[in-house]
Amino acid sequence: MDIAALIRTIPDHPSPGILFRDITTLLKDAGGFAWTIEALVERYRGQSLTKIAGVESRGFMFGAPLAVALGAGFVPIRKTGKLPASTIGLDYALEYGTDRLEMHTDALQPSERILLVDDLLATGGTARAAAQLLSQAGGEVIEAAFVIELPDLGGRTRLAEAGVTTFSLVSFGGH
Amino acid sequence: MDIAALIRTIPDHPSPGILFRDITTLLKDAGGFAWTIEALVERYRGQSLTKIAGVESRGFMFGAPLAVALGAGFVPIRKTGKLPASTIGLDYALEYGTDRLEMHTDALQPSERILLVDDLLATGGTARAAAQLLSQAGGEVIEAAFVIELPDLGGRTRLAEAGVTTFSLVSFGGH
Repeated sequence: MDIAALIRTIPDHPSPGILFRDITTLLKDAGGFAWTIEALVERYRGQSLTKIAGVESRGFMFGAPLAVALGAGFVPIRKTGKLPASTIGLDYALEYGTDRLEMHTDALQPSERILLVDDLLATGGTARAAAQLLSQAGGEVIEAAFVIELPDLGGRTRLAEAGVTTFSLVSFGGH
Repeated sequence: MDIAALIRTIPDHPSPGILFRDITTLLKDAGGFAWTIEALVERYRGQSLTKIAGVESRGFMFGAPLAVALGAGFVPIRKTGKLPASTIGLDYALEYGTDRLEMHTDALQPSERILLVDDLLATGGTARAAAQLLSQAGGEVIEAAFVIELPDLGGRTRLAEAGVTTFSLVSFGGH
């Protein structure tokens, strides 16, 4: 299925010159959404994943269905102050300033096999921080999976430098 | 399955006297999470739902898997300024001040049959606003489904006043 055709492009959002890739048009298409999750299930079935970790908040929309379909648990990785119990966190650099990701301290058991999921891979800064956080918590990050990859922005290389391989379903040139 | 036992209670969060019901301990339990989605699938299978609408952001974690399992599309209902394309919105009263929910203007086709999903029903203010927003967009809200209901807070009555029935999997007395 050509799910790229179900992803809406919004010019100049959130700032001039940026082509924003909007996955809500994919989500609302029942067949397209089901196909997307099934394509990920096909890749990861039989890999004995114990947890799917989704990055706030579009990563929840793809990671949670994948967890259910694979019979894995789901771990939300969130922005600062959103999780109610004891957390571990990681600050990471953005183009301007820093941001922080957190997960619950007790989200993982020792030696869990984890797939990191988000909707889009751009520069890879957020994904790398999420992968590092999962590793710090004692998890083994098997791969990072994205619906969309923007290869010109180098996220795959940035993740590889952190020892994480990348899988994506759709690539868009440009930004 | 006793999924209530998989929901963690955090005293005095986010403020003194509040017992916060934390669903991340349910999500990370593969069997518990799968059971939760399957229980919702059993209720709504055969009801010809065309869309599942999830409320930001814990509603995404339950609504998105349910959409995939039922073969429906998924519509995120978000806080102000989070959706990239043209939106419709609704302001609603909180205990102190107001909040606003938004959805994409083109999220629904005419006469769609929609299930509203969130993790928890408390006073029902947010759920009622979400249901009203879906109705304004031309959708028929078949029901509102929650993992957890706090019946002492009257959310079910508030939703009924707006013409929406409530279904929940677990009830906790107190707050």
